[in-house]
Amino acid sequence: MKIQIAQLNPKTLNIEANFIKAKEALAKVNQDVLTVFPELALSGSPLFATADYEDIYKQVAAVAERLCSENKDCIVGLPTNDGVNRYNSLAFIAKGELVDLATKKNLGSFDGSFSKGDGFEVTQYEGKMLAFGFEEDFEDFVLRQQEVDVVVCMANNVFEINKQQETINKFIPAVRKMACRFIYVNRCGAEGSYIFNGGSFVLNEKGNLCEQMPLFNEQSKVVETNALSPLTQSPMSKIEKMYNAVVLGIGDYFRKNGIKKAVIGLSGGIDSALVAALAVRAIGNENVVGVLMPSEYSTDHSIKDAEDLANNLQIKYYVVPIKPLYQTALQSLSEVFANTERGLAEENMQARIRCQILMGVANKIGAVLLNTSNKSEAAVGYGTLYGDTSGGIGAIGDMYKTEVWAMARWINRERIIIPENSITKAPSAELSYGQKDSDALPEYDLLDKILYLHIEGKQDKEQIIAAGYDGQTVDKVLHLVKINEWKRHQCCPCLKLSSCTLGIDRLMPVS
Amino acid sequence: MKIQIAQLNPKTLNIEANFIKAKEALAKVNQDVLTVFPELALSGSPLFATADYEDIYKQVAAVAERLCSENKDCIVGLPTNDGVNRYNSLAFIAKGELVDLATKKNLGSFDGSFSKGDGFEVTQYEGKMLAFGFEEDFEDFVLRQQEVDVVVCMANNVFEINKQQETINKFIPAVRKMACRFIYVNRCGAEGSYIFNGGSFVLNEKGNLCEQMPLFNEQSKVVETNALSPLTQSPMSKIEKMYNAVVLGIGDYFRKNGIKKAVIGLSGGIDSALVAALAVRAIGNENVVGVLMPSEYSTDHSIKDAEDLANNLQIKYYVVPIKPLYQTALQSLSEVFANTERGLAEENMQARIRCQILMGVANKIGAVLLNTSNKSEAAVGYGTLYGDTSGGIGAIGDMYKTEVWAMARWINRERIIIPENSITKAPSAELSYGQKDSDALPEYDLLDKILYLHIEGKQDKEQIIAAGYDGQTVDKVLHLVKINEWKRHQCCPCLKLSSCTLGIDRLMPVS
Repeated sequence: MKIQIAQLNPKTLNIEANFIKAKEALAKVNQDVLTVFPELALSGSPLFATADYEDIYKQVAAVAERLCSENKDCIVGLPTNDGVNRYNSLAFIAKGELVDLATKKNLGSFDGSFSKGDGFEVTQYEGKMLAFGFEEDFEDFVLRQQEVDVVVCMANNVFEINKQQETINKFIPAVRKMACRFIYVNRCGAEGSYIFNGGSFVLNEKGNLCEQMPLFNEQSKVVETNALSPLTQSPMSKIEKMYNAVVLGIGDYFRKNGIKKAVIGLSGGIDSALVAALAVRAIGNENVVGVLMPSEYSTDHSIKDAEDLANNLQIKYYVVPIKPLYQTALQSLSEVFANTERGLAEENMQARIRCQILMGVANKIGAVLLNTSNKSEAAVGYGTLYGDTSGGIGAIGDMYKTEVWAMARWINRERIIIPENSITKAPSAELSYGQKDSDALPEYDLLDKILYLHIEGKQDKEQIIAAGYDGQTVDKVLHLVKINEWKRHQCCPCLKLSSCTLGIDRLMPVS
Repeated sequence: MKIQIAQLNPKTLNIEANFIKAKEALAKVNQDVLTVFPELALSGSPLFATADYEDIYKQVAAVAERLCSENKDCIVGLPTNDGVNRYNSLAFIAKGELVDLATKKNLGSFDGSFSKGDGFEVTQYEGKMLAFGFEEDFEDFVLRQQEVDVVVCMANNVFEINKQQETINKFIPAVRKMACRFIYVNRCGAEGSYIFNGGSFVLNEKGNLCEQMPLFNEQSKVVETNALSPLTQSPMSKIEKMYNAVVLGIGDYFRKNGIKKAVIGLSGGIDSALVAALAVRAIGNENVVGVLMPSEYSTDHSIKDAEDLANNLQIKYYVVPIKPLYQTALQSLSEVFANTERGLAEENMQARIRCQILMGVANKIGAVLLNTSNKSEAAVGYGTLYGDTSGGIGAIGDMYKTEVWAMARWINRERIIIPENSITKAPSAELSYGQKDSDALPEYDLLDKILYLHIEGKQDKEQIIAAGYDGQTVDKVLHLVKINEWKRHQCCPCLKLSSCTLGIDRLMPVS
């Protein structure tokens, strides 16, 4: 059986464009090829609450009919409505007609308004038994112990740094037992925080990996299920995967929202430097605008490091010192601030003035502000709300500070793009004289290890201390994580890279 | 059978304080009374991802043991851990010992990390058959057709404006059929956006309402299940319910987060006036600080209306004109803004300067900024991110503008608290000369009707037009709702009052 795997990047609710993509994929193959598309390929995904509305079902049904008239066999994902219930469905189209429909049974967090369907369908096709359905329903299908030749499994698998190999491994035992050919079709592309990583694959009846589509990119490829031979994999490194994921995430955010330009505040520090480098890769240096906003607390090297970066990346930048606004603000608030000591209010004020300037630039030139907060900061609340936590999307909000450094070094592996000084100097918010992050927080090496155990590892204080960490430090870090949840409720969304992304996977009570 | 309904207001993860509340309730009754507590009374709720951590199970188990030693019979909600799985449970404690445990079977959105339990338990008590379990599992229990005398049903029922009567009505047919006494125990109090409305109630074997505990307040009450007599209800009006819900929501936000003071920007408009009146009711006039921030675009009456309000409420207020900051900002950005027309960037800048001032005041005096955005604005994106969408919690973010007016009139029913002029004048953001909301939006009467059909009613464009609304207007409104989703992802959380609260119940794709 010849199967074309169409690993597409649909756009949510851009139904006509998604149809054209599907049609183009069909046009590439002859009539003896069955094309398999990812879950919800016609509507895009995740649909969230848009699936509550009637109109998308009508629009999708109309393009599904047009797809039938292409007269090429295919299995395509789409939302359907039988007049009573709404389903996440897969339509099997053969000889120009809808011949079978699989509906998802085990609904997930993206399946909000869909009703529970029937799971896998089995159909005779080209003299073979072909099963098709959704990833979530595969386990139930295995329990049916039905003999089939080929299984096609559709997914909407969201990128997490360690997930791709786990996904492949998960299917191997069942495929061996069933002795079937197994085709896993995942979409690629990003939608808001979610990056779908592609990486569709094929296993032979022994469970050997025989085809592996690229991570992150669209591709269509024909496989002959009777002529599969094992592959040797050369997996990407963790940092390279993260890098590609973030570049796709930023790029699709701008492309799918129809925005061209990004504004980034450049402090001379590592976070903004990395985000600028990623943005330039994602949308081009002509579309990235830097803004340097030095204050009296900025060190000379900060300004130079930021300028060096802008020059290395060949991006346009503005310099807007914050002193006039800061002094006017202190003047305006002199009645409230009278007879008080300089403290948090004054420090936060500087971060908010920078937000004010960045949003002014963004609004004026029709750009979107890219957020530069990292996961370590967000976890312990080391940032100013309506200040440096602002932006349309957080590029590195799911990367710990130590991962930020590692990616910067990886980017610099051939030539210096991110100034060496931005990588090696001690991190500082530069909101008062001589301030260093380590005045308020443990060193990032230690902080990130504790945070990882607590956030990804879901370990409590006692367990982390038992793993060999200092009690007082653990106590302090976990306390900061707890009391800063309210800030995270208003931080800008970030690209999901890990198994536990703040703001998405770890919602906590505020009080 | 004598049953004490303990309609408590626990605080999430404040386990010791919750235990003391439970103990005090037990102390009120003799040993012949069975006390029934709400769902998760010992841990508080919602637990969200805190239920992923081991420590709370240990802490709760320890206080549950201490509760046993009080030697009063009770049924109490708590999270449990059997070493393998975690459950949302109800412990039946009799004669100082744990005699039965019901575990929730039909898990809801607050039950993230709990495993599926077994549903209702039936036990013999005082010579009667007593069933107890969770609201979500009652339907399954009815299907078992087991004969029982008394059913105790525990809930974590979140307030929605039309829900209380629906909740009561939902149980009546089954209770009649089973001919049992039915006791519904709901918690009260607010946690972040969620307001638990209390309103615990008792039905006799004919399905008549025989007891109705207060909405929103803590109360404990003993009922004799053999001596129930029907009540006549005098339900609160919709506006009064909303008012009480918001006052509880604001009050518990401050009390449970250990914050005393609120800062509110007073524009002279109706939204900020209403929020100030609500805040004064919730936390006292001595804890509410107003800030007037007039600009060159403010009309004289705006300043006077805001001052009248502050005087009526007897709250302290500051006046901080924004002109110096606005002019300095324009000066600072002169390179970027050169040769452009005054537009959105300049308008937004004023709103962000106000946020800067408000947060400066809040940070300096240790207060939290209360957000004053209404649902109509949030729906169509008529607000400035990091400007007037800021704040710790949105007091009226789930109230349409027409509801804001109605509540202001209701508050003024006996004497003028909110200046009449704030209620009657045409709404304006006052970000440019002569600006009115109706320049950019349909009149609120019309806008709110369309929004309600679209948001609460989940109707699409075609359906709303079919209901008699103008096509172009509907098109425009629905388009604004769609393109402003990204803003709502960063708006501050608001108190949930309706069946479809923006930011909680209606998550949409951004691109």
